[in-house]
Amino acid sequence: MTISDDLSDLKVLAFDVFGTVVDWHGSLVKEIDTLKLDVDSSEFALAWRTGYKPAMQRVMSGELGWTLIDDLHRMILDDILKRFSIKTLNEAEKNQLNKAWHRLDAWPDSVEGLQRLKSKYTICTLSNGNIGLLTNMAKRAGLPWDCILSAELFRKYKPDPGTYLGVAKVFDVAAEEVMLVAAHQNDLQAARECGLRTAYIERPLEYGALQIKDVSPNNENTLHAKDFIELADLLGCQA
Amino acid sequence: MTISDDLSDLKVLAFDVFGTVVDWHGSLVKEIDTLKLDVDSSEFALAWRTGYKPAMQRVMSGELGWTLIDDLHRMILDDILKRFSIKTLNEAEKNQLNKAWHRLDAWPDSVEGLQRLKSKYTICTLSNGNIGLLTNMAKRAGLPWDCILSAELFRKYKPDPGTYLGVAKVFDVAAEEVMLVAAHQNDLQAARECGLRTAYIERPLEYGALQIKDVSPNNENTLHAKDFIELADLLGCQA
Repeated sequence: MTISDDLSDLKVLAFDVFGTVVDWHGSLVKEIDTLKLDVDSSEFALAWRTGYKPAMQRVMSGELGWTLIDDLHRMILDDILKRFSIKTLNEAEKNQLNKAWHRLDAWPDSVEGLQRLKSKYTICTLSNGNIGLLTNMAKRAGLPWDCILSAELFRKYKPDPGTYLGVAKVFDVAAEEVMLVAAHQNDLQAARECGLRTAYIERPLEYGALQIKDVSPNNENTLHAKDFIELADLLGCQA
Repeated sequence: MTISDDLSDLKVLAFDVFGTVVDWHGSLVKEIDTLKLDVDSSEFALAWRTGYKPAMQRVMSGELGWTLIDDLHRMILDDILKRFSIKTLNEAEKNQLNKAWHRLDAWPDSVEGLQRLKSKYTICTLSNGNIGLLTNMAKRAGLPWDCILSAELFRKYKPDPGTYLGVAKVFDVAAEEVMLVAAHQNDLQAARECGLRTAYIERPLEYGALQIKDVSPNNENTLHAKDFIELADLLGCQA
């Protein structure tokens, strides 16, 4: 896919974070391994992540009041610690493990790709992660965001339209002047329905090497790229 | 003033922006001068800034609903254009002039000082300016924020306690682990009343060379520094 002239009005790139910019599965596995728990660390990481959407759904349905992802992560952690029969962690250790989501490693191309994209566009996060989490993660991993936007600002989780349209509103630009960059087709579809441009990023190892993700292109996306380096190439951002 | 041992728990530096990080008066004067209006550009800039607090007061009193600073700046601009009898600007030119607040120049020490402070602390804005304004300003001036926090997130303007305490909440730290850095004693006092540490920065030229500001120390502040370089020295952040 090549960049077409009609992307000349593009101004803002908004990035999904978990899975798109950082390797949550590999990073969590590493943290869990250091704890020497009697558990399959990959299964534990997958269970933690699987609890995420139902937990957000409880907030969006009104069953729970507005809740930060840090707190949802902790609720899910408490559940799966029971489910995996882990009783050896004290409160401080649970808190420390919960903050593993602040210490996720970037994919190898992320920092270089973002630096290139930043030279031409405003680059921001658009994540359901809370602002503190995203800031700590960026500082540790060297992610050079111009701005950290989060569900926490809009008090709505993706895929609520208020999040995608919220980015355009923050920067006082039209929806089509914003491109969502994500490794998840459902996120991109919701953004497209709001009028944003979309770029799909292949992250075949998002769920680990035992569960390779289907990264087939969807022609509805504006762009499809292997990683952020290829995205920078497609958008004409110099190395 | 020297750094005392009891600052060892300090984690976050939150910066006031207009006047503290950037030179609003000098930058506006430059922009107004390029428009060749029949007006004293310094007086015009001062009038624009003077309208700011009463406008925020109208929001905080409930007379106006929640309003971004971009929109308050525009309301004040329309007022003072009338007051200064300027009728030559069309709508696009007024919008362009209003966005001058996105293009304010940093004080000469700001970028270097922030880079040094960032090596040891999380550095963020805490400004009544909206997120888009602060992001555009940072990108243009090279201000290396870890995170842009704004009244827009808290839906309250400084000096509302919800803004100062909001910073601590975002980063999940105690109030005393946050230091407000500002060139305005009233801002610092309100932060102190919420339990934050405070650092006063001298900006004698904030209102221009014809109206030198009193920059006398107030002993209630944790630190007092000439500029961000001296603040970095006081906080032991290496050059």
